[in-house]
Amino acid sequence: MIKIVLVRHGQSVWNLENRFTGWTDVDLSEAGLEEARQAGLILKQNGYVFDEAYTSYLKRAIRTLGIILHEMDMMWIPVYKTWKLNERHYGALQGLNKAETAAKYGEKQVLSWRRSIDVRPPELSLDDPRYEAALPQYQAMKEGEYPRTENLLDTEKRVLDYWQERIAPSLSSGKHIIIAAHGNTLRSLIQHLDNLEGDGLINLNIPTGIPLVYELDEELKPIRHYYLGMEGPLPAGTIPKHISKESTTKGPPA
Amino acid sequence: MIKIVLVRHGQSVWNLENRFTGWTDVDLSEAGLEEARQAGLILKQNGYVFDEAYTSYLKRAIRTLGIILHEMDMMWIPVYKTWKLNERHYGALQGLNKAETAAKYGEKQVLSWRRSIDVRPPELSLDDPRYEAALPQYQAMKEGEYPRTENLLDTEKRVLDYWQERIAPSLSSGKHIIIAAHGNTLRSLIQHLDNLEGDGLINLNIPTGIPLVYELDEELKPIRHYYLGMEGPLPAGTIPKHISKESTTKGPPA
Repeated sequence: MIKIVLVRHGQSVWNLENRFTGWTDVDLSEAGLEEARQAGLILKQNGYVFDEAYTSYLKRAIRTLGIILHEMDMMWIPVYKTWKLNERHYGALQGLNKAETAAKYGEKQVLSWRRSIDVRPPELSLDDPRYEAALPQYQAMKEGEYPRTENLLDTEKRVLDYWQERIAPSLSSGKHIIIAAHGNTLRSLIQHLDNLEGDGLINLNIPTGIPLVYELDEELKPIRHYYLGMEGPLPAGTIPKHISKESTTKGPPA
Repeated sequence: MIKIVLVRHGQSVWNLENRFTGWTDVDLSEAGLEEARQAGLILKQNGYVFDEAYTSYLKRAIRTLGIILHEMDMMWIPVYKTWKLNERHYGALQGLNKAETAAKYGEKQVLSWRRSIDVRPPELSLDDPRYEAALPQYQAMKEGEYPRTENLLDTEKRVLDYWQERIAPSLSSGKHIIIAAHGNTLRSLIQHLDNLEGDGLINLNIPTGIPLVYELDEELKPIRHYYLGMEGPLPAGTIPKHISKESTTKGPPA
């Protein structure tokens, strides 16, 4: 039986300020650092062991992973970083306050940008200081590959490319894997694993810093999944009931 | 002109307790964490940029590197970890207090274990709990490769193997590289770069947490080297005068 652990990064300083973040490389807040420590602790207490780890180019995910591996005494494992696991690119919304944006454009428009699978927020212009294609981490990207905005399908496509190319073969070869990434990238992955069409998961809110374990069969089809260390009822929207009734079951040690 | 930056990890909790450490995976002390932050800050202030990083399997070096990259806002770069950059294996001395060991075996014997290039401390027996060959990070090693003790030449050999196989080709291809490692592994590297014979560097004490920059020509022969951000005279033994008179020169931005 194959297991993979998914963790959404802890609270960032912009989560705190209620701003659209996307590819902006903001750091974890103090609460986010503590969430990461708790995630590491609960994984260790449950006997999890990993052979390799995957994360994005964004420090809020990389640090979450680093803290988890430190708590687990497993800092030595290979950590693979890729822009393909970056959060969804939020275009010209990046940096804007969510409440102010809703006041300006209307709740309905903002909801459509956030939750429609095929609607892209306004794109960044090439001379916008928030257009960071010139940063060294993005120099290996092909011409035009750096997004100026993304809808959920764009994000899903690159996440699944990376899954098929790198993560799935490694899982199938028997490696124990943890992925530390972002709300929309992890949702894309779950959508794929659970073989849901279209907007099946659009209202799934993955809680930050809570390890989500997927047990998979040999063809990487999900058998069941559960969050580790969550006591009591989950916040509304955090468990897609149509996927599994076992979501709150605490798993046995790996 | 090629540059490489070497950093010895910050103070560990066993440095503080004056114990032989070797491959024991002890953590940084509070002072060690602060040394790492200072190293990152001085590299950032001097405009350094890296494409990739190398470190050992030991958390005191991995964390030093992680903190440096966080301070430099460069967490996204690939970090390659290898046992070949681990500190010298100290055999049955690992964990012992240095002063107690000197009282028991005599100063002369301890000095010989520490500073003779070809003398090995007593080896760990196979049933010694300190013999950690069964740890997951060492499972990829070949039969008998996990050392039970090492002299300085043993350490140098594996460090230079890794240098030749991995780091030198990458440097020659134009990559900007930082290595975060240990006193004896960095000394081995310096000994090789400066083409010194035998015990040329046996009394070189590399200071912890101070970036040491080597400028190299196309054949990776040293042009000059200097520590970054060290003001005033260095502690005795930290600069090998026979190598360079420019050791205290503060370098220009990379």
